[in-house]
Amino acid sequence: MLSVSAEMDETIKRISSRKGVKGIIIMNHQGQTIRTTMEADEAKLYAHQFSHLVKQTQTTNDLTFLRIRTKKYEVMIAPHEDYVLLVVQNPSETYQEQ
Amino acid sequence: MLSVSAEMDETIKRISSRKGVKGIIIMNHQGQTIRTTMEADEAKLYAHQFSHLVKQTQTTNDLTFLRIRTKKYEVMIAPHEDYVLLVVQNPSETYQEQ
Repeated sequence: MLSVSAEMDETIKRISSRKGVKGIIIMNHQGQTIRTTMEADEAKLYAHQFSHLVKQTQTTNDLTFLRIRTKKYEVMIAPHEDYVLLVVQNPSETYQEQ
Repeated sequence: MLSVSAEMDETIKRISSRKGVKGIIIMNHQGQTIRTTMEADEAKLYAHQFSHLVKQTQTTNDLTFLRIRTKKYEVMIAPHEDYVLLVVQNPSETYQEQ
């Protein structure tokens, strides 16, 4: 079985090859970045902003997935036991192929 | 052009026929229910809980769509100028056809 950190690396590698992906952040449940493909400051901004959202949704439900679409980008958030995976993508590029 | 309230009725009619849809809530931006296919109390609970989420995401981004998936249900939220549309569905029923 993969260690958590190997699992994280594997996840980042798999997702970052996808078209339209702007960045990947793996954060802990307190919103601190563990790994990212983005600039540290940018990752920190996203992590801070969306960790509140995850916490708020998590407390009242057993959240499995969160997708936030704004005019500029799309953020997909998948909470795991040990970490939270956050992918920022540009929807217009990502869905061009489909 | 349809009045806002006719637009709401039209939207409710169109969505409520879809498989797996458990309820539809149309609320104002303060989280008060304007129309719903659910029990008033249940609608109030959902509206209260998710209006915070919309407000929080709205202030920092120009939110166009929010999808929250938990183990029990899936909530899709589409903010419009005059109201916020919230659809609660059972993902296992909805995606059976696809």
